[in-house]
Amino acid sequence: MNRYEHLANVLGERIEQGLYPSGQRLPSVRMLSNEHGVSVSTVQQAYRMLEDRLLVEARPKSGYFVSASKRLPGLPAVCRTPQRPVDISQWDQVLAQITSRVIPGMIALGGGTPDLTLPSLRPLSRALVKVAQRTDLSALYYDLIDGSKELRDQIARLMIDSGSSIDAENLVITTGCHEALSIAIRSVCEFGDIVAVDSPSFHGAMQTLKGFGMKALEIPTDPVTGISIEALEMALEQWPIKAIQLTPNCNNPLGYNMPDERKKALLRLAQCYDIAIIEDDVYGDLAYQYPRPATIYSFDDDGRVLLCSSFSKTLAPGLRMGWIAPGRYRDRALHMKYIGTGASATHPQLAIADFIKEGYYQTHLRRIRQQYQQNLCVMTDWVIRYFPEGVRVSRPQGGFLLWVELDEKIDTQKLNRLLEPEKIQISVGSIFSASGKYRNCLRLNYSQLDEKIHEPAIKRVGEVIHQMMENG
Amino acid sequence: MNRYEHLANVLGERIEQGLYPSGQRLPSVRMLSNEHGVSVSTVQQAYRMLEDRLLVEARPKSGYFVSASKRLPGLPAVCRTPQRPVDISQWDQVLAQITSRVIPGMIALGGGTPDLTLPSLRPLSRALVKVAQRTDLSALYYDLIDGSKELRDQIARLMIDSGSSIDAENLVITTGCHEALSIAIRSVCEFGDIVAVDSPSFHGAMQTLKGFGMKALEIPTDPVTGISIEALEMALEQWPIKAIQLTPNCNNPLGYNMPDERKKALLRLAQCYDIAIIEDDVYGDLAYQYPRPATIYSFDDDGRVLLCSSFSKTLAPGLRMGWIAPGRYRDRALHMKYIGTGASATHPQLAIADFIKEGYYQTHLRRIRQQYQQNLCVMTDWVIRYFPEGVRVSRPQGGFLLWVELDEKIDTQKLNRLLEPEKIQISVGSIFSASGKYRNCLRLNYSQLDEKIHEPAIKRVGEVIHQMMENG
Ligand SMILES: Cc1ncc(COP(=O)(O)O)c(C=O)c1O
Ligand SMILES: Cc1ncc(COP(=O)(O)O)c(C=O)c1O
Repeated sequence: MNRYEHLANVLGERIEQGLYPSGQRLPSVRMLSNEHGVSVSTVQQAYRMLEDRLLVEARPKSGYFVSASKRLPGLPAVCRTPQRPVDISQWDQVLAQITSRVIPGMIALGGGTPDLTLPSLRPLSRALVKVAQRTDLSALYYDLIDGSKELRDQIARLMIDSGSSIDAENLVITTGCHEALSIAIRSVCEFGDIVAVDSPSFHGAMQTLKGFGMKALEIPTDPVTGISIEALEMALEQWPIKAIQLTPNCNNPLGYNMPDERKKALLRLAQCYDIAIIEDDVYGDLAYQYPRPATIYSFDDDGRVLLCSSFSKTLAPGLRMGWIAPGRYRDRALHMKYIGTGASATHPQLAIADFIKEGYYQTHLRRIRQQYQQNLCVMTDWVIRYFPEGVRVSRPQGGFLLWVELDEKIDTQKLNRLLEPEKIQISVGSIFSASGKYRNCLRLNYSQLDEKIHEPAIKRVGEVIHQMMENG
Repeated sequence: MNRYEHLANVLGERIEQGLYPSGQRLPSVRMLSNEHGVSVSTVQQAYRMLEDRLLVEARPKSGYFVSASKRLPGLPAVCRTPQRPVDISQWDQVLAQITSRVIPGMIALGGGTPDLTLPSLRPLSRALVKVAQRTDLSALYYDLIDGSKELRDQIARLMIDSGSSIDAENLVITTGCHEALSIAIRSVCEFGDIVAVDSPSFHGAMQTLKGFGMKALEIPTDPVTGISIEALEMALEQWPIKAIQLTPNCNNPLGYNMPDERKKALLRLAQCYDIAIIEDDVYGDLAYQYPRPATIYSFDDDGRVLLCSSFSKTLAPGLRMGWIAPGRYRDRALHMKYIGTGASATHPQLAIADFIKEGYYQTHLRRIRQQYQQNLCVMTDWVIRYFPEGVRVSRPQGGFLLWVELDEKIDTQKLNRLLEPEKIQISVGSIFSASGKYRNCLRLNYSQLDEKIHEPAIKRVGEVIHQMMENG
């Protein structure tokens, strides 16, 4: 753990234990710097981390204060996972979720779509037009199996921000992060293999394991620091695990960034047991902290991490543009790419490469990160206000997804059915588990909040939950 | 077999046996109609078929003549396949072929790209521009998992031409025909299963079988009528075959259309042994005959045929837009779609739907079919002129690919190496076999022929083959 992380934890605990009551002014940066023998910038970083966790507010010219407006609810509980590999279920629920978008007028509170309406994204549409108009018709031809050099070069540049120096030759462009994950899993595992996953975990990756006949072993995962290294080590001792699949940055659905020390510890474990890590970084560029957190991939020096990502969350999911950095598995990844879809689509590759090259990516990123961070406070407020007391919520450090844990009695699939006539829909928690856990949890998307639409919808969800509580 | 097919075969045999020498006038339509007791239009259809096979030429006002300009070389031999399932090899050669496009200035004589430069395709680029400019930003959003209704509706309409009445609900849009095949194979088969394939066969499908751990059983295939029903039946008796994967229309690489009777016989076999058929129809709309040949899918009434296709050969491969009609396997196909790539890209779906709806598809099709049919004669001429005597060539009835069989001594991989310094490349035959057969064969693409570029290139290939023959 870094110094500032350590300091942030100390201060955070004091706040949560009520030592500094809400609204109170916190010690000045200079005071803390003296008290703890650390630099001023370390204290500032610690305070910024606590701001990210919504525990602290900075007031211009007066310093740092314990967040007054709200008492934050508790964190979601760490799952008590039965430690054995399971066949993955939940496809029916996933299918219900991904096909439900058809219903016109539905307010989807749980989906995975970012805000696409910002002016900072407009140049992307213009780039698509420009590429379609090229007289060399380059958009129409088959591309290379590993993707266009233009785009791979740009991605290699972007990846420096997450700590990696990667050669464009070692990237393979994919049809979204879905295909990247699918390639990664098939590059590393075979039918019947066991894969350790964070829990809760992205349903797409788990359904991919299911589809290829693998078993998932859900590892208890802390809502602030991520997958438990200790539980993982125990599991590795007990089972012939082939790979670890996880989303360490801006996790879906929990929103945490794993601290670097834990990422490194995870990598050491993987080295020790000689297994692969499939790292999903699809939300990584949406971290609220600056610079964005490092990937596990960036610490890897023997090619065992397969990094999967896409532009679906940062730019636009409809373009289906992702990539994989497959490390030492490149040959096998190319075969899996070829038999999955052949080459990737040419047009969006060239358009995105152009968009990044012109500098629009970073501008857009700054804009949406800010919006998402602000919306997080709004959404958290609404949940506190409208949901029954005792509700637990995640502390996202990036992205646009909030994880909400309700009373154990509440089944969110039933909640969704009750909300159907009102044309409101949340994401049910059970799809984030290989075995249908988290039935009392739900996921909310706060990428784009309209007070006239979303506040009444959240209020209504709260009311229905209240009713469900009362009816037992 | 139809009456006209029967008649065409009788006449064709007489010509090939030299009963009617080249340049000679053939019996008039009326005479044959009397002689064989069939209608005038049946005779006309038979003659048209023989024209397609380049055996006969129509001369305005004077009737039909045996093609004078060329004596057609023999047909490629039917492979004597060792009748046992094999693990698929050849990935290295496939990879070499699909990555070789990087070399600047290379004349690729063997690739799978259609002509994209025709004015009749111009409206597709315009449609891409239009969709990118839509103010509702629809191109950027996630699409439904089975694809956009607009495009599915249009495809359902197009499929009427191949004899199918299909509901748009029973189609799933895919990332090219590659993904359609990948989905089909995974929907029907499991690790270790045996799949019967035509031989030679599309390498993409075979590599997919390889990638998912299945074995291929290559069935002898006639260069004019397709996969041998008799050999297939024997194989079905002997082995626990799970599915048949084949390209019955405008076959790649042989170019034949399986006669309807043989398609029906194949379907009966599949019913009898209760197995699935994976039908690749990617070139079907490029058949030179009118109306285009029927699919096996169109005869199927119990949902055992999974039809796979795309717009890669008719429109543009870079858009990666295909589809699957998965019959009774829809649920599993949706799961496989989800875990392969998630939803398909939205932008090209909407653009292609628009292009078809405006009537541009049929116009373009007419234009390119005509060009390909003309180019076939040109390319065949060149091969006859420049390749050593004894060369055997296919009689494509659609598409833009010619299969050439050389003397058994010639290894086309070696040929390609010898051509490398001249920046000329052909497709080697061995990638079209699961086990490296057809080493003395090659595939040529005649979609777009420039006499200044392609004739000298073919001539050079012929010279190098001559040299190889001389050097033993
Ligand atoms: C963690 C995670 N990984 C991958 C994906 C899929 O990304 P894409 O749309 O690029 O396939 C998602 C989207 O929901 C996600 O949440
Ligand atoms: C018979 C056959 N099927 C499928 C494909 C792949 O089509 P797509 O580019 O749409 O994936 C090809 C292309 O080479 C082919 O020849």
